[in-house]
Amino acid sequence: MTACDTIYPSDRVTLREVGLRDGLQLAKALPSTKAKRDWLAAEARAGVRHFEIGSFLPAARFPQFAHLPEMIAGCEALNLHSAALTLNDRGAEAALQTAVRELVCVVSSTEAHSQANARRSRDEAVALVSRIVALRDAQAPGKLVNAGLAMAFGCSLAGTVSPDEVLRLAEACLAAGADIVGIADTVGFAGPRAVGDLCARMEKLCGPRPFIIHLHDTRGMGIANAAAALDNGARVIDASLGGLGGCPFAPGATGNVVFEDIVFLAETMGFATGIDLDGLKAARAIAEAAMPGEPFHGALHRAGAPPNLTWRADAR
Amino acid sequence: MTACDTIYPSDRVTLREVGLRDGLQLAKALPSTKAKRDWLAAEARAGVRHFEIGSFLPAARFPQFAHLPEMIAGCEALNLHSAALTLNDRGAEAALQTAVRELVCVVSSTEAHSQANARRSRDEAVALVSRIVALRDAQAPGKLVNAGLAMAFGCSLAGTVSPDEVLRLAEACLAAGADIVGIADTVGFAGPRAVGDLCARMEKLCGPRPFIIHLHDTRGMGIANAAAALDNGARVIDASLGGLGGCPFAPGATGNVVFEDIVFLAETMGFATGIDLDGLKAARAIAEAAMPGEPFHGALHRAGAPPNLTWRADAR
Repeated sequence: MTACDTIYPSDRVTLREVGLRDGLQLAKALPSTKAKRDWLAAEARAGVRHFEIGSFLPAARFPQFAHLPEMIAGCEALNLHSAALTLNDRGAEAALQTAVRELVCVVSSTEAHSQANARRSRDEAVALVSRIVALRDAQAPGKLVNAGLAMAFGCSLAGTVSPDEVLRLAEACLAAGADIVGIADTVGFAGPRAVGDLCARMEKLCGPRPFIIHLHDTRGMGIANAAAALDNGARVIDASLGGLGGCPFAPGATGNVVFEDIVFLAETMGFATGIDLDGLKAARAIAEAAMPGEPFHGALHRAGAPPNLTWRADAR
Repeated sequence: MTACDTIYPSDRVTLREVGLRDGLQLAKALPSTKAKRDWLAAEARAGVRHFEIGSFLPAARFPQFAHLPEMIAGCEALNLHSAALTLNDRGAEAALQTAVRELVCVVSSTEAHSQANARRSRDEAVALVSRIVALRDAQAPGKLVNAGLAMAFGCSLAGTVSPDEVLRLAEACLAAGADIVGIADTVGFAGPRAVGDLCARMEKLCGPRPFIIHLHDTRGMGIANAAAALDNGARVIDASLGGLGGCPFAPGATGNVVFEDIVFLAETMGFATGIDLDGLKAARAIAEAAMPGEPFHGALHRAGAPPNLTWRADAR
């Protein structure tokens, strides 16, 4: 059993809270470090174990991630699995000096987006994954390397994205030594059929290893897409509390798929998440208080779960 | 080929706009008859052909449906398929005197809800369907009789609902002569697995006849549930423009599943709807202007469709 199997067991569903990273990317009202740690602790009490908490970028230019060391310490204090973006060699080198447990690399699915977003080709992005894996092997073999494929279901620059291309890049990332690969509907172009089809192919490619599905709810398809992903072998889902995180390409759009709603979805489908909805409510209250004016979404929060646990598949 | 096959062809997806009935049920700001007719005409221009437009109830007590004759005339003028609720013998008798094309009966899936909501047993509700079919046969054989099963996925009073019971009632409604049967997640308890499973069984029961799926987005599962329904044989979906229509049991909750988002979903799944999203936008502007303060929902309206038609399955 590898470290990855322990952290993302293939026989159950794992939900990754990405609100403290992706959710803050475009936020106007930034929470204090204390508020972020309180939010983290509250969500941990609700049963969440996996957190993406920031990005190894210069703090001066990216104040939303300035307190990454404190957030890593917060995760360690509670024995949570922490992950953070490492978008270049310097970021990876910095990450390896910390207790962060997972380094997240991003590879664009299209050449156009790769050049526009990271000023490198996709091949160069895969080569960076390779270098980060080598660094990790040498310096901190217990950490995971995660490679996320952005724009895997359509690209705001290139339009249609070929699933074959995504699969090719996923295979290249695995060959480069990534422990886990993710596919992201970065701009919310996908419907459930496309998500289901690509997940089925990813499951075949990854074999016993899990893969991650990262969804944005830009066009309201987020939950349907997550259901299709679960139906087709995805066992790790990114989400953010209250759907925090906008999309620069779709003003007013919701961000990541709503964490609370994903918990409800998974439980209705018979996947026990180990996460308590009332506990998420408490975490949300902390995050909302810390980010006044920031829109929080989610239907389950508004309506509450149906009474009597009739909705849990295992209670039926 | 029966009338039902022509109106609800089993080889394509039909979307029923129920906003002018279900959407107004709890509305505080009621649109004028002129606004309702403008909304109807605009949505017809967008390609929508099926409208549920009211309920045959005493106008004095139900002002939201007071102008049913004018709405029926509006549908006839545009050759649209009109449907309205007939909740008792008197309503059915009144309906048969008009040009309305479909009489909608409601049968609760649970005895508790049937008694509380309609002060009759489920058997009595099925017997009413039978009487309405007989009246229809005698007086207006061209009209359809639709029997909708409320609370088919869970009941706010009885909790869990047995799918076997729902199937038994659906069979009883068909035996009573209903042309088409619907299953409704009235209070938004369902997840996609439950919806998919029951739709698969409904498809088996109904054979070549289509059945209707009626969903509320109370807990954010509406689009996922619609996707599961489409995946399991449902070909007629109820929805309302902007998700109009609250739920008395879940304050603040959205109502019916959002029409615009359902169009997007169906198209991404490869089901051509013949409905134009820009046209829906125009219809929504009319409805919003006519109902100030009423919450309108929907992600597609906010974000717009992805560019370049990459989202249409037939364009991929």
